[in-house]
Amino acid sequence: MSATGKKRILSGMRPTGKLHLGHLVGALSNWKRLQETHACFFMIADWHALMSEYKNAAALREYITDNVIDWISCGIDPEKSVIFVQSQIPEHLELCMVFSCLTPLGWLERCPTYKEQLRELATREINTYAFLGYPVLQAADILLYRADVVPVGEDQLPHVELTREIAQRFQHVFGKEIFPQPQAELTKTSRLLGLDGRKMSKSYNNAIGLSDAPDLIKQKVMQMITDPQRIRRTDPGRPEICNVHSYYQAFAAPEIAAEIAQACRQAAIGCTDCKRRMGELLCSYLAPVQQRRAELLHNREKLDAILADGRARAQRVAAETMRDVRALAGI
Amino acid sequence: MSATGKKRILSGMRPTGKLHLGHLVGALSNWKRLQETHACFFMIADWHALMSEYKNAAALREYITDNVIDWISCGIDPEKSVIFVQSQIPEHLELCMVFSCLTPLGWLERCPTYKEQLRELATREINTYAFLGYPVLQAADILLYRADVVPVGEDQLPHVELTREIAQRFQHVFGKEIFPQPQAELTKTSRLLGLDGRKMSKSYNNAIGLSDAPDLIKQKVMQMITDPQRIRRTDPGRPEICNVHSYYQAFAAPEIAAEIAQACRQAAIGCTDCKRRMGELLCSYLAPVQQRRAELLHNREKLDAILADGRARAQRVAAETMRDVRALAGI
Repeated sequence: MSATGKKRILSGMRPTGKLHLGHLVGALSNWKRLQETHACFFMIADWHALMSEYKNAAALREYITDNVIDWISCGIDPEKSVIFVQSQIPEHLELCMVFSCLTPLGWLERCPTYKEQLRELATREINTYAFLGYPVLQAADILLYRADVVPVGEDQLPHVELTREIAQRFQHVFGKEIFPQPQAELTKTSRLLGLDGRKMSKSYNNAIGLSDAPDLIKQKVMQMITDPQRIRRTDPGRPEICNVHSYYQAFAAPEIAAEIAQACRQAAIGCTDCKRRMGELLCSYLAPVQQRRAELLHNREKLDAILADGRARAQRVAAETMRDVRALAGI
Repeated sequence: MSATGKKRILSGMRPTGKLHLGHLVGALSNWKRLQETHACFFMIADWHALMSEYKNAAALREYITDNVIDWISCGIDPEKSVIFVQSQIPEHLELCMVFSCLTPLGWLERCPTYKEQLRELATREINTYAFLGYPVLQAADILLYRADVVPVGEDQLPHVELTREIAQRFQHVFGKEIFPQPQAELTKTSRLLGLDGRKMSKSYNNAIGLSDAPDLIKQKVMQMITDPQRIRRTDPGRPEICNVHSYYQAFAAPEIAAEIAQACRQAAIGCTDCKRRMGELLCSYLAPVQQRRAELLHNREKLDAILADGRARAQRVAAETMRDVRALAGI
């Protein structure tokens, strides 16, 4: 709980690439909502990124600032929320080390996400010491800010569970309860699929980037797959299974989405026109985001000031927690 | 290599208890010698201590200062050497995290010291995540100061080997050579055994503490086991197998040790007298050490100033290394 009585939230993103519409519809719109009611700490998880991306580390630094710029452009308000970079707050690794001393190896080896990730990211040689400890650092991230709530996707639920177990183990060993039991808040995973109908992802090369130029956005939308059974222009379409239509649901006013759905079912609008209209619509939707982005890109001082302020505010809370932890751990 | 052209040394001790004669004859006399010819960084390895001692963490803080006091009292000169506490320099954990991202789990699981320690310290529940990573933190300790030389006991040789492998892996991944290849310098293990003839160790309760009161020292020496074949006072003794005699070799002037050896062989001195003399001799030997200890104990300001100075000097070097590392790792 924060000083203002609001519940605390910790969430983060790994700066492994430029952000796309999936991030906007998934995490960012959720964060924007949460910052109105909670004390939010939003973290660029660069240590976590290094764990899987150490072979492309040179790009990390660029993505760190680029992602922050997108966060703010999408409405994350640095006055309301604390925006900070994980590796700038040394207490993350300190608390992680204390937890590492208390965490049985078996807890990590048995973590259901672990072996799955090892398989999925097999080409990246992540069978490393750090990667096994991923959830310990995550527990430190969360408990350092004594977060009450952690917005996560379903796949991350075991990590929040492990965070609670580590907090309990800390309390058992050191005899004092200094951490809350953080609760997961399930984020609905983004319904927004990529251009090819698979999950939107940089690695599938099927994403529309938040910073893509309008022409590129329009061009990408024109490539999208619609209802495969609608072969002729005169065939009625099925908006409920059309990927383009899900974009209308995400980005158009409800009455526009309804109008388009009806026109599609009646074959009153063809897929090409429907996509052309979506392209225009997306460009207008992103115009103010890209406008703010351009301003921040050209006002590096303002960005630095935002990050310095976030760092100081995060540091204050982190230092307080570590004072308590150090007193108990004799360090 | 340091700015003065001297080779750099990193060594440390885990603050897990009060120091005893074994530490003095082993590490400390070696350090005292090395500080004349090398740029030495001597570290209180409190993170390493926490890994095995987290269940008795309350005592850690006390041992940290107590050990530093003993180091200085035994002749480690804070003007010549950098004396610092590991957990006060955040860069140790930062470099450790970077290395953790590059270190295959198998390297650690196959480390010969690992399974041995798991068996030896079975009662302490050290089958934890941190303990598996012990050698990664050690590599970070060494390479953070770009140490050329690491004085170690034979059991620690695999860790220095692993340190070199991690440095090479870093260079391979990030394409730049910023670390030396540190060399192990084998420290002769202390020939000084405990009162019962086993290795001197706090856990065997057979140690003479550097801060034991003179009466206690004398009393402990009187309990020592001598040549078991010398039953009667008139039997000639064998100084070469007598534990008490090894103390003469360590603490008496060579001519005194020779004189006592001859008297023992000729049964001109009895074990009781020999031990009484050793007790006196040890007390005189330790008197100036204990005198300096008492002064430092009562001059907390001076101790704090020494530790603050060591911290600042260590921090300077550590920050420089991490600047180079961060530039390569994009963090």
